[in-house]
Amino acid sequence: MSQRVVVIGAVAAGSKAACRFKRLCQDAEVLLIDADEYISYGGCGIPYYISGDVSDEKELRSTSFHMVRDEQFFRQDKGVEAMPGTRALSIDRKNRTVRIQKRDGGQTDLSYDKLMLATGARAKKMPIAGMDLDNVFSVASLQQALAIKEQITTGRIEKAVIIGAGFIGLEMAEALSDMWEIETSVVEYCDQIMPGFVSKKLAQMAQHRMEENGVTFYLGESVEAIEGDVAVSAVKTGKRTLEADLVISAVGIAPNGDLAEAAGLEVAPGGFIVVNDRMQTSDSDIYAGGDCVQVTNLVTGKPGYYPLGSLANRQGRVIGTNIAGGNARFKGAVGSFSVKLFDGALAGAGLTPETATREGYDAVGIQAGQFDRAHFYPEKEIIFLELVVDRESRRVLGIQGFGGEASGMYARVNAVATTLQYHPSVADISNLELAYSPPFASAMDIVNAVANAAENYLDGSYQPAYLEDFLECWNNRDCGEYFFLDCRAEADAKPFEEKHPDVWKSIPHDQLQARINEVPRDKKLVLVCNTGVRSYEAQVNLAAEGIRDTYSVESGIAGLKECGMRF
Amino acid sequence: MSQRVVVIGAVAAGSKAACRFKRLCQDAEVLLIDADEYISYGGCGIPYYISGDVSDEKELRSTSFHMVRDEQFFRQDKGVEAMPGTRALSIDRKNRTVRIQKRDGGQTDLSYDKLMLATGARAKKMPIAGMDLDNVFSVASLQQALAIKEQITTGRIEKAVIIGAGFIGLEMAEALSDMWEIETSVVEYCDQIMPGFVSKKLAQMAQHRMEENGVTFYLGESVEAIEGDVAVSAVKTGKRTLEADLVISAVGIAPNGDLAEAAGLEVAPGGFIVVNDRMQTSDSDIYAGGDCVQVTNLVTGKPGYYPLGSLANRQGRVIGTNIAGGNARFKGAVGSFSVKLFDGALAGAGLTPETATREGYDAVGIQAGQFDRAHFYPEKEIIFLELVVDRESRRVLGIQGFGGEASGMYARVNAVATTLQYHPSVADISNLELAYSPPFASAMDIVNAVANAAENYLDGSYQPAYLEDFLECWNNRDCGEYFFLDCRAEADAKPFEEKHPDVWKSIPHDQLQARINEVPRDKKLVLVCNTGVRSYEAQVNLAAEGIRDTYSVESGIAGLKECGMRF
Repeated sequence: MSQRVVVIGAVAAGSKAACRFKRLCQDAEVLLIDADEYISYGGCGIPYYISGDVSDEKELRSTSFHMVRDEQFFRQDKGVEAMPGTRALSIDRKNRTVRIQKRDGGQTDLSYDKLMLATGARAKKMPIAGMDLDNVFSVASLQQALAIKEQITTGRIEKAVIIGAGFIGLEMAEALSDMWEIETSVVEYCDQIMPGFVSKKLAQMAQHRMEENGVTFYLGESVEAIEGDVAVSAVKTGKRTLEADLVISAVGIAPNGDLAEAAGLEVAPGGFIVVNDRMQTSDSDIYAGGDCVQVTNLVTGKPGYYPLGSLANRQGRVIGTNIAGGNARFKGAVGSFSVKLFDGALAGAGLTPETATREGYDAVGIQAGQFDRAHFYPEKEIIFLELVVDRESRRVLGIQGFGGEASGMYARVNAVATTLQYHPSVADISNLELAYSPPFASAMDIVNAVANAAENYLDGSYQPAYLEDFLECWNNRDCGEYFFLDCRAEADAKPFEEKHPDVWKSIPHDQLQARINEVPRDKKLVLVCNTGVRSYEAQVNLAAEGIRDTYSVESGIAGLKECGMRF
Repeated sequence: MSQRVVVIGAVAAGSKAACRFKRLCQDAEVLLIDADEYISYGGCGIPYYISGDVSDEKELRSTSFHMVRDEQFFRQDKGVEAMPGTRALSIDRKNRTVRIQKRDGGQTDLSYDKLMLATGARAKKMPIAGMDLDNVFSVASLQQALAIKEQITTGRIEKAVIIGAGFIGLEMAEALSDMWEIETSVVEYCDQIMPGFVSKKLAQMAQHRMEENGVTFYLGESVEAIEGDVAVSAVKTGKRTLEADLVISAVGIAPNGDLAEAAGLEVAPGGFIVVNDRMQTSDSDIYAGGDCVQVTNLVTGKPGYYPLGSLANRQGRVIGTNIAGGNARFKGAVGSFSVKLFDGALAGAGLTPETATREGYDAVGIQAGQFDRAHFYPEKEIIFLELVVDRESRRVLGIQGFGGEASGMYARVNAVATTLQYHPSVADISNLELAYSPPFASAMDIVNAVANAAENYLDGSYQPAYLEDFLECWNNRDCGEYFFLDCRAEADAKPFEEKHPDVWKSIPHDQLQARINEVPRDKKLVLVCNTGVRSYEAQVNLAAEGIRDTYSVESGIAGLKECGMRF
């Protein structure tokens, strides 16, 4: 007798599992239910629908060959019985039934042989006043996206406040500001954007890029209330009141684990459904995947939460295979991410210096800035990578980067990211074999250079000045303790020397040995060049002369400029 | 007492080793000798110098901060004594000396504590008549590049023949054809371009792209003679005579192992210097790196040869570290490569279906074509990946791809390439975690899709029609044995059906179940759609109906069109 599989949740993981299973077992019956009327849509595309890059929401619900993934599509093309507008109320594991409520309010029980939970996640809601005012939105469903776009297209929205500077917040800020020219502010509780995903310095680069494109940031501020009568009129933070006729709350999402918990399945605190690497819950006939589960963090070995459409699809396929009697595994994730910010982009994977330290590693982040292609090749741009390493074991724990949207940064982050599960050492990345030719990479590529820098740091020959160090010295440059030694060519360095003659000196690196007596020995020396190569070499040369209180500015002037520094 | 290190060869590996060692041991003496007057140049940039993308050869010899790497640079900036125009004649290992011949012809002995060989490679020379005629060149040194450019800039070169369709040959073909509008032909002995690096189908895509840009190819032809009086006037192949006033021989390179061999060091047949993973030769005081050594192929575990500036740099750094008393390792390589071909690009790593079969694997290459970004994102293009797997172990042996120069193909090849040394399975690539967001990738990315296709093939549910299979059926379409079933939407498929009514039928995939009786059961069915997704699903559906003599065209019509097929 053919079996019946019920899938609860029909966005990414659920739809994928249903179709994969059905292809493998074509005589089985597959029911795919979802409380929403919209199913199988690309939720990650919502910011691009809001911006207008994607003109019609149907495109988010269509295949690459332009068929809308509705009930008819699932039935005719996939052989799957999709039931939108159908809410799962409870699971009776003993009798293997799911109690559902249909569009018309009527309840019934669906029997199942195997069950899959793809109940997704919901937007976290801040416990403050005004969250229910008109024009206060989150972006966790296509329904909400439609409502936001409806408001924007009235032309009456002039000022928007976005709460939260994570992926969704930043993507929405670009969407509103770039395409609709809405005056957009982002309020973030932490003291940097993308907290937990990149270091402060990379965050500063990305923030600066967005500020240049007209977005305003208020960091380290918590939202205390949303004000207005019927519709929102302002957002009140701990420090100011921002006028707003649109508010988007993007303070994170929480897994929908209630249904699983009520059914007695193992659910971790916070609502994360616990699964094994076959994506089975504590009931081996019930699988779960997508934004409602926790999976193994392949860097730390601990549970992690990675609510991404990409991983949901992979998990869905694994589940489809396993329900059909296969033995597919989903080992876990390293948290690879990417986000486009106007013409810039952030990407990364694994741990940041801060998250690694919280996890108990003796972690440090080492940065490099370098052209993404051979420096003699006409088309190229400087990109920035940060490698996160454990000092003691020399293990690489993470990689993050900032660069132009179309730059080689994305390729480099992925090239390291896919190896993180194998626990590479710094030396492994130092020898990482990127496909080389001048239009695509450098012979000594930045991905190798950043590992070389980390190795030099671990070996004690490289002492970097991080952004904070540099700012500390620069902002106190008149105190007499610091001195800036510029190792660039004279043409580049002289203007700085002329502007700041008491603290800034130009000694091109190739003149350093000959002019070693001009180097002050009683000050903390901040060594700069364009990207950090020559200042590092100067640091090595100075150490051989007994001058050791030196700091080489990582990513050099190019990095500082990308952060918005002006001299 | 400080030690003296002598480095023979001052292009990539030698220069890097010399500088790295000197930074680590600043009181040591480092001598960097080279027979050539030009040292430390980016040889891989030569095609871009020829084309004019790089306007001055000095750029190939300069740092990213525009300092020419000449003797003065090495002395003042690096503390290394560079000696261009100095030939190493022999090595006396017992007395630790190198006999050299200087510019003026005078000979002397240099003593060394440690020696490094970076003697590079030379262009292979075909044993045919006419190789010494004027305007017959190879591209193995900057001197030759200068001579070629001098000829081109006279404006008198109208027809060029390039012998060999590997990297250099193709890059040179683009350079001559694109920027100088020289009528350029490429003659290749094998029956495809880039033999040994990509499959025939990817080669066909790349060839078609170059043909569209005006380059002519003669494959499967061997050059028998080069004709002319003083200068070349024609190239005679086994099949034709091609007029030519410029010939570039790019039939491969051979390592310069003579010096090492004469010194009694272990040298493998062909002249490849044998080194361990610390890059030491059979004499532990003598290191070797760059285009003169063989290193481990990390896919097969056997010796491999990877003459690339990128690996030379990595090896140079490892050697510099080790001479300074460190313990760095160069484990080997997987042969990652990339080559730009007008606005297209090929890249890859590891084994191809053909090379894997030669190595004794039960290998198959499985292709997929898909958009490089979310299909709803406005900017995107279809790219093609081929995953090479061992049928029995399901191990991934290689990855190759073709796509636009600026497409996401490069990132995907690298993401897989860097994991090849860890011997991933097809399932590992199926779950490969590419950094996802719609402007950069698909939720079910092509890199996962190609592994899914391979898994379906290994599991027996996917039976692809390769390019050769398709052509076999198409070219014999009137024999009555074959039938083409088009699973695309009617608007796409109908024109094909109307043009070829006897053999081509349009049944959109979502109508297949309802119209199953229209499917002929007595013919070999060739299933097509745009990229291969719907034709695969149709194959699965048909199998459930007992129709099993079906072949799904890999990469679909999009792939065939990229190969130059017209219907």
